[in-house]
Amino acid sequence: MASVLRSSTKLRAAARVPAVRALSTTTRLRAAEKPFFPNEPSAPSVQTAIPGPKSKAAADDLNEVFDVRSLNMLADYSQSVGNYIADLDGNKLLDVYAQIASIPVGYNNPHLKEATQSPEMINALINRPALGNFPSADWANILRTGVLKAAPKGMNQVFTAMAGSDANETAYKAAFMYYRQLQRGGPEVEFTEEELQSTMNNEGPGSPQLSILSFKSAFHGRLFGSLSTTRSKAIHKIDIPAFDWPQASFPSLKYPLEDHVQENAAEEKRCLEEVERLIKEFHNPVAAVMVEPIQSEGGDNHASPAFFQGLREITKRTNVLFIVDEVQTGIGATGKFWAHDHWNLQTPPDMVTFSKKAQTAGYYFGNPALRPNKPYRQFNTWMGDPARALIYRGIIEEVERLGLVEHTRITGEYLYSGLERLAQKYPDHFQNLRGKGQGTFIAWDTPHRDQFLAKAKSVGVNIGGSGAAAVRLRPMLVFQKHHADILLESIEKIIKLL
Amino acid sequence: MASVLRSSTKLRAAARVPAVRALSTTTRLRAAEKPFFPNEPSAPSVQTAIPGPKSKAAADDLNEVFDVRSLNMLADYSQSVGNYIADLDGNKLLDVYAQIASIPVGYNNPHLKEATQSPEMINALINRPALGNFPSADWANILRTGVLKAAPKGMNQVFTAMAGSDANETAYKAAFMYYRQLQRGGPEVEFTEEELQSTMNNEGPGSPQLSILSFKSAFHGRLFGSLSTTRSKAIHKIDIPAFDWPQASFPSLKYPLEDHVQENAAEEKRCLEEVERLIKEFHNPVAAVMVEPIQSEGGDNHASPAFFQGLREITKRTNVLFIVDEVQTGIGATGKFWAHDHWNLQTPPDMVTFSKKAQTAGYYFGNPALRPNKPYRQFNTWMGDPARALIYRGIIEEVERLGLVEHTRITGEYLYSGLERLAQKYPDHFQNLRGKGQGTFIAWDTPHRDQFLAKAKSVGVNIGGSGAAAVRLRPMLVFQKHHADILLESIEKIIKLL
Repeated sequence: MASVLRSSTKLRAAARVPAVRALSTTTRLRAAEKPFFPNEPSAPSVQTAIPGPKSKAAADDLNEVFDVRSLNMLADYSQSVGNYIADLDGNKLLDVYAQIASIPVGYNNPHLKEATQSPEMINALINRPALGNFPSADWANILRTGVLKAAPKGMNQVFTAMAGSDANETAYKAAFMYYRQLQRGGPEVEFTEEELQSTMNNEGPGSPQLSILSFKSAFHGRLFGSLSTTRSKAIHKIDIPAFDWPQASFPSLKYPLEDHVQENAAEEKRCLEEVERLIKEFHNPVAAVMVEPIQSEGGDNHASPAFFQGLREITKRTNVLFIVDEVQTGIGATGKFWAHDHWNLQTPPDMVTFSKKAQTAGYYFGNPALRPNKPYRQFNTWMGDPARALIYRGIIEEVERLGLVEHTRITGEYLYSGLERLAQKYPDHFQNLRGKGQGTFIAWDTPHRDQFLAKAKSVGVNIGGSGAAAVRLRPMLVFQKHHADILLESIEKIIKLL
Repeated sequence: MASVLRSSTKLRAAARVPAVRALSTTTRLRAAEKPFFPNEPSAPSVQTAIPGPKSKAAADDLNEVFDVRSLNMLADYSQSVGNYIADLDGNKLLDVYAQIASIPVGYNNPHLKEATQSPEMINALINRPALGNFPSADWANILRTGVLKAAPKGMNQVFTAMAGSDANETAYKAAFMYYRQLQRGGPEVEFTEEELQSTMNNEGPGSPQLSILSFKSAFHGRLFGSLSTTRSKAIHKIDIPAFDWPQASFPSLKYPLEDHVQENAAEEKRCLEEVERLIKEFHNPVAAVMVEPIQSEGGDNHASPAFFQGLREITKRTNVLFIVDEVQTGIGATGKFWAHDHWNLQTPPDMVTFSKKAQTAGYYFGNPALRPNKPYRQFNTWMGDPARALIYRGIIEEVERLGLVEHTRITGEYLYSGLERLAQKYPDHFQNLRGKGQGTFIAWDTPHRDQFLAKAKSVGVNIGGSGAAAVRLRPMLVFQKHHADILLESIEKIIKLL
């Protein structure tokens, strides 16, 4: 099943979507693709300054009960459709940020709406089980027809979670248990009395000083364990106690890649050597290496397949687990269902974590030894949410039905070419354009990034940033060539406004 | 609004529930209360050994993709109703464990079912917002008519989360930020360059070695920060790195309380002195004290209102935050909406965390200074789930409509009296009966606890344990006197089987 998702090369979308309804006379639909959402606006519409008066009043009201200082815009989801997000003042923006890369198949997707009406969904919403103790009889089926259908190659198990942070942390816990099990000599070796007693005091040997190795600029979440592996920005970390865990350099590649082949290879070699040195020498032994296929919050930092192959080789050789954080890269955006499918690894990662576009979360694995050796070691009351697992199933069905992975690969190529043209025309505004061959997972640096993002709304697009200087594009999987045309035009307009 | 929930003294249920449908001739409905669920079975029915053949086959199947070693029973929720949980083999058990204390208003509650069909719910399910950036325009209203309507006295703010663990951890993060802000001299004092740099290396002063003080036997969750405050059982903690944080003794009271007044008061005084000593002397300064009103996973350990008043007084005096973990005790089960309502505190706790029966999670607070001083310090992609917030709203409505808090107080008294009678009759099987005046939040110790729980299913009840020796009762809020009668009869049957 999963192979269907990964190897689909046919674009089956056009034949199945409903006929296009009375299109406006806009010239923007140059690219001859039928819209996935026939009721989508044909172009953004900006009616007021953004935020407009209604949005401002609503934000003031919300502020009474909820911190709104990170508010980007208050949305009217009932009026949002496909790639367009609406606000209270009648503005409709082309959304290439998509809830921080977490909406895959469009606002008010009719297939997902259908999924909300099923008896299974109602059951999951009102009879929420403690999945570890009292799973519903259809839980195996929900997993097989959904979460596990999309499992990465070599993985047939899942531990379900609630969001990216706890998906990552439960994967870390599995890694620590596995590491200690190897040290002890196997799953049947009992804990010592000293271990059992010391762990109650948060002390070794029961609570060992082991570590997870992550990379500089990495983002893996904001709870205490995941935040200890996050190295994106000080504001994410300051004042919060952290574990003494190691960080390796992530490759800092030079662009365009084709002009810096040897330099970049040397940089990746340097980083790999640093990883190996830290694994061998760091004072708190490393149980696992955690890495994003593309560092996302940290600034859209890419590395080559060779780098990740190197990581897999080092971790195999040093008996350290290799965990891939696909929270932001997973579910099709890079033109493969999983971004690590680009790497052609000889053996799969040990664990792959997911969230965001899956609308639920967890970690996949294949090796049965990664199930802890006793029950109740990896456990919590809910262990995920079947309602959200059903939404993920609907998303997978939609991805398959519309061939959205391959679609995103093709649209990404189209969009990337357009950005290359803009970069030639406006070299001062485009540095380090990156993400070629990575679907729509594209970014570039620009000297006036924050103004760029702020102006975007005035021309009708909602765009996000990452790191200190990057504009990051995170369109949905239903983003089409005619949306790319609008986006490219809008970017040019923003540049002219700066 | 909140006062309605807290001070309701009328039992408005009977008048509003539909007429009782053709009751069976069972004698069990001795207590003259109309059932909240007219279609509930009048008694448990046990058709097969449990697990029966269908359940066994389904568990084997599930085991292929999901760890089932903590499986208690596979449920057929489509056949479950009210207080009764059904399995695949036609067995229907009176459920006084209720998904580890997380189902408040009964399986297949019609009002919740209605809530799943609203346009708001569909919107929340298919257009999931990043709440910190792009909340829906109706988010303030969803909060005010739901989550915040039930806010504890003195609290009008909420930070929403996904489950108990991250609710607690985000509260800890708020506490650390607040503590450092006080140290710095206020919200307007900027971070130093040294802080900003050191935190990127997980080092002080940016990542300070501060701590949360919790209690021996406490349970606050299983992620890395929350697990560092959990001291329930070694199996929950072993092999996982933990922070060097302090633990104080939780009072170990003697029962019956009325026979040990002075001894228990001395014990509580001893524990309070320990708390104060640790706050003053522990090497990693204490930013907050975290406590459960009744230690639940840790064995149903109670303390008096005087003890908690003492904690509030010490934390006020030492400028340490006081966080109350109401994940298991909240939403009515103790005969008050919040268990800490029993304490008559002069000033409210600084934060109160919730999850489980709320079906969503987060922490409440009142002091605006607990909002971090800058945006993006307390943040994540989803920051909760509006779909689950809508379910919480439905639960609150049902609690109000049926007067379930007061109902649970009364039913709890009835149940407790029955248990006292059993305890007199079977003194060898009942030690430390506790929870008097705490609604249905009742427990006792028994020397053959694990066999007791295992046999319970054969007589038609699903019961859980806590700690090493306790039987813990966690009925739903729709548990009625006739259910109590069945439960009491069943307990006697189990004792006779042992």
